[in-house]
Amino acid sequence: MQTPWEYRYANRTQRMGSSVIRELLKLTENPDIISFAGGLPAPDVFPVKQFQDACNYTLENFGAQALQYSTTEGYRPLREMIARHAERFGINISPDNILITSGSQQGLDFIGRVFINQGDHIVVESPTYLGALQAWNAYGAQYVSVPSDEDGMIVEELEKALRTGPKFIYVLPNFQNPTGSTLSLERRRLLVKLADQYGVPIIEDDPYGQLRFDGEHLPSVVSLDSEHQGKNGLTYSGNVIYMSTFSKLLAPGIRLAWVIAPEQVICKLVHAKQAADLHTATFNQMVAYEVGKAGFLDEHVDFIRSVYKERRDVMLEMMDEVFPSEMRWTHPAGGMFLWGILPEGMDAADVLKVAIERKVAFVPGTAFHPNGGGLNTMRINFSFSTPDTIREGITRLGLTLKEAVARAK
Amino acid sequence: MQTPWEYRYANRTQRMGSSVIRELLKLTENPDIISFAGGLPAPDVFPVKQFQDACNYTLENFGAQALQYSTTEGYRPLREMIARHAERFGINISPDNILITSGSQQGLDFIGRVFINQGDHIVVESPTYLGALQAWNAYGAQYVSVPSDEDGMIVEELEKALRTGPKFIYVLPNFQNPTGSTLSLERRRLLVKLADQYGVPIIEDDPYGQLRFDGEHLPSVVSLDSEHQGKNGLTYSGNVIYMSTFSKLLAPGIRLAWVIAPEQVICKLVHAKQAADLHTATFNQMVAYEVGKAGFLDEHVDFIRSVYKERRDVMLEMMDEVFPSEMRWTHPAGGMFLWGILPEGMDAADVLKVAIERKVAFVPGTAFHPNGGGLNTMRINFSFSTPDTIREGITRLGLTLKEAVARAK
Repeated sequence: MQTPWEYRYANRTQRMGSSVIRELLKLTENPDIISFAGGLPAPDVFPVKQFQDACNYTLENFGAQALQYSTTEGYRPLREMIARHAERFGINISPDNILITSGSQQGLDFIGRVFINQGDHIVVESPTYLGALQAWNAYGAQYVSVPSDEDGMIVEELEKALRTGPKFIYVLPNFQNPTGSTLSLERRRLLVKLADQYGVPIIEDDPYGQLRFDGEHLPSVVSLDSEHQGKNGLTYSGNVIYMSTFSKLLAPGIRLAWVIAPEQVICKLVHAKQAADLHTATFNQMVAYEVGKAGFLDEHVDFIRSVYKERRDVMLEMMDEVFPSEMRWTHPAGGMFLWGILPEGMDAADVLKVAIERKVAFVPGTAFHPNGGGLNTMRINFSFSTPDTIREGITRLGLTLKEAVARAK
Repeated sequence: MQTPWEYRYANRTQRMGSSVIRELLKLTENPDIISFAGGLPAPDVFPVKQFQDACNYTLENFGAQALQYSTTEGYRPLREMIARHAERFGINISPDNILITSGSQQGLDFIGRVFINQGDHIVVESPTYLGALQAWNAYGAQYVSVPSDEDGMIVEELEKALRTGPKFIYVLPNFQNPTGSTLSLERRRLLVKLADQYGVPIIEDDPYGQLRFDGEHLPSVVSLDSEHQGKNGLTYSGNVIYMSTFSKLLAPGIRLAWVIAPEQVICKLVHAKQAADLHTATFNQMVAYEVGKAGFLDEHVDFIRSVYKERRDVMLEMMDEVFPSEMRWTHPAGGMFLWGILPEGMDAADVLKVAIERKVAFVPGTAFHPNGGGLNTMRINFSFSTPDTIREGITRLGLTLKEAVARAK
C-alpha cells in the first residue's frame, strides 16, 4: 500500500538500521532452537513472588499515587535507595544526581540527544555494546575504536583516540557485552588519568557489575576518577556519567534503569525525557522500590550469581570438550556473555547459517564493531539456558564449528 | 560544580525548554493550592482492584514472560484487543498496524524522529497540545497555525496553511487539549477533503474520544478519510496516523498508549523504538490486557464519564455564578479541560500570580500557541478535583478574575 507517509521520512531515518540482535531474537521464538544469541536473563531467577507481594502492597496502600502521572526525575524513594546503593561502589551522590529511565537503552538515547551533534567522535571499545551504537547512530555519531583484549579496552592505545577531539569515552568495565571481559584495575587508573589529561569525560555503563562470580569487585571508574581528582570522601567529581539497571538485578520486563550525572546534566536529561515520554511508569518504580527496600536485592543477587556461575562453568567445560582447538574464547568472571574467536579469515555469519539448521544460535561478532572487523568472532550468552540445554546446545555448536574450521583449512 | 559535560551539549539541546506545565505541576505539590493547572485524571476513577487482580493473575500464570524482555512492537494480545476496539471508530486494521508506546508522548516523539527534518512545517490548530510542540521542537519543527473556535480548527482557513508545503497536519478532534472543543462533522469532512486535495497526511491524536458526556460520538478523521477514499468496508487508507492511550481510560501511571499507522510506517517507528527504549514494559502490557480483555473497559468508561460530567457541570455552573461577565469560556461535551478567554489586552500570566497567592492555579494559554498570541487565555482542568474542591477553587478564581478585569478597565 502506497501512502503519503512514505515520501516524508526524515533524513535521519535513513540511518536507523534494524537491530541484528532483534532480528535474531525472532529465531528464539522457534522453540526447537537453542539460542545463545539473545541477551536475556534467566527467567528462573525472576523474583515473581516478591513482585506479587510488592504489587499488592503498592496498590492496596498507594493505589491512587501508583497509577497517576508523576515527576520526570523519578520516584524519590527509589532514587534515594539508588543513592545509598551508590555508596557501595564508593561514591557519594544525592538523589538529585539520579534520573530514572525506562531501561538503560533510554539512558543511552538521552545521552545521544543531549550531547551528540552530527559527526561527533565517540571513543568506544571495539567490540562494544550494540545498543549504544544503535542509540547514537540516530544522532549521527562517528566512532573512534580502541581495541580490547581479555582485560578490556587496551587503554595503552587510548591516547591516539583522545587526540581526535572526541565528545566522550564510552566504556563497559565489568563483564562487558559482548566479550565478557573486565577492565583491569591498572587500566582503569590509566583510563581515568588519560581522560583527565585530555579533558574528555567518560560514560561508564555498568549493567552487570554486581554479577561477579570469581575474584574481587574492582573499584568503579566513577570512584577512581573521584580519587584521582583528590575528592574528599569520594565526593562525585562529575567527570563520569554512570549508568546501571534493574534489568539484570530484578527483571527487564519492568524497564527500569538509572543514570548518575552532575545535576546540570540531569536537568538536561530531564528535559529530554519530558519531550520523549514524560516519565517512567510510576507503578513500576514504586513496585521496584518495594521489592528492593528491605535489603532483598543483596540476597537475590547472591542467588543470581550462583545460577549464572553454574551455567558459565558448564558452558566453559563443554567448550573445552567439543569446540575445535583452533578457537579461542574468553573466560568471564561474571555477567552473561562470553566471546568466541574463530581462526582469522573465517566468517561467523557463515557458521551461524549452518548452526541454525542444527537448531542452535549465537550472534556473529561483526555487528559489535562500529568500524568493521571481527568477522571471525561470536557472542555466546550463558545466562538464559539451563545447564542441560547448554550441554546440548554447545554440543550442536561444537560439531558445527569443527566442521567449519576443517572446511576452512 | 563545573564539569566537562557543560561544554559538550549538542546544538539541539538549546531548543529544549522546560515544560511550563511541568513547572506549574510542581505547585500542585503544595496541598494548600487547588490546582486546575495539571492534566491529571481523577485518582478516584482508577480501577485499583482490577489492577490488583490483573497483577496477581499475570504473575501467577505468566510470571516469567511478564518480567522478561519482549518484542518492540508490543504484546500481541493487547494489539489484537486494540485492533478489535478500532472497529468501533469504524476502521478495519490488523495488529501489524499498531505500535504500543510508553504513553502518547512517546508516540509523538517517534513521529518527530521518523518524519521531521529541521525546519519542516507542521500544520497545527492554535492553540494546540503542548506535549506535541515539546516533542517536535526537539527535531526543529516549524508550525503553521490555523485558528480554532468552539467547533475546533477553522478548517475553512486550512487551505492557506496547506500551500506552505507542510509535512503533515496535526489535529485533536475530540475535546481538545487545551480548549475542550470538538471538531464538527462538517469540518472533519472538509479537513479530509482538503488534505486529500493537497496530498498532505494527517495525525489524529485522540486521547479523550471515549470521554463524551453529551451528544453523539462523531466519526473519527481516520474513518472519514477511508470513506472519502471510497474504501470498501472502511479499510484503512493509510493517510491518517491515529493515536490514543490508556492513560485516560485506565491510568497514566502505567504509561501505555498506541499508534495506528500503515505497516511501513510502523516498521520505521519500531526502529525508532528499538533505539529509544527497546520495548514498552512487558508486565504493564500484560496487566492492561488482563484488565481490559473481558469487556471491563466499557463499563469503566461509563463510570469515568459520569464522574467527569458531574465535575464539568459543577464547574460550568460555578463559573456562570462567579466569573466576570466580561469573560467567555468553552462548554466542552467531554474530556478534561475547558478554556477561558479574558478580555483582549489582559495577560493570564499576571492573573495566575495573584491566583497562586489565593491558592488556586490554572495554565496560562499562551504556551499552547506555537506562534505566539493567546495571552488572554487560560486552560482549566475539571477532571482532577472533586466537586466540592471545584466549588471552592472556582470561587477563589472568580474573585481573582473579577478584580483583574476591574483593574484592567
